[in-house]
Amino acid sequence: MSDAVDLTEKLSLVREHWSPKTVAMLNDYEVKVVKVRGDFVWHTHDDTDELFLVLAGELTIRLRDRDVVLGPGQLFVVPRGVEHCPHADEEVHAVLLEPAGVVNTGDAGGPLTAEAERI
Amino acid sequence: MSDAVDLTEKLSLVREHWSPKTVAMLNDYEVKVVKVRGDFVWHTHDDTDELFLVLAGELTIRLRDRDVVLGPGQLFVVPRGVEHCPHADEEVHAVLLEPAGVVNTGDAGGPLTAEAERI
Repeated sequence: MSDAVDLTEKLSLVREHWSPKTVAMLNDYEVKVVKVRGDFVWHTHDDTDELFLVLAGELTIRLRDRDVVLGPGQLFVVPRGVEHCPHADEEVHAVLLEPAGVVNTGDAGGPLTAEAERI
Repeated sequence: MSDAVDLTEKLSLVREHWSPKTVAMLNDYEVKVVKVRGDFVWHTHDDTDELFLVLAGELTIRLRDRDVVLGPGQLFVVPRGVEHCPHADEEVHAVLLEPAGVVNTGDAGGPLTAEAERI
């Protein structure tokens, strides 16, 4: 049985941007921490919603019809099938929550695709 | 489509202790905020894990073999089938995550059983 997970401590282990790391499992869902900065890619997850919770910094989740801006303590669930593109001017620390096996770049693929290694 | 959810703002709407309120859905999971203080009841969720993330205060999750103590920014997943009893000396603000329909008191029932109303 795992013990308490300290999100700040886990984030201190993350070096790359846009590379989520799994820190806990909730049934078949993965709780991940991620550092992001700059632009991600437009992509869609056809089979699942995706939760973003910001811990530090300001994250913009661009949707095709508007931007959702998240500061610390704010969360947003991108509904399944909705194209989105995260963006951060300065480094953001965030938590992601989604079913195990979801690929970060969704249907888009490309060089930013990353395995969610467990830390 | 819902917009950004501010956890502090949502918690400001919560008056009772031990009465989780749903603030977002992630597929068939509910994201809830809760204020707790004092002792809950020993209970078990046989069919699901349950995630606790503390935002403010110090939450002790008593297990039969030990205590897990969570401060702000720390989370713990109580595995399905594991008896637990949350406790807080002072008021704690936390996020809960679990499948929709999970009853807060699990198999124990009793007067602290609460519907997770959406706010």
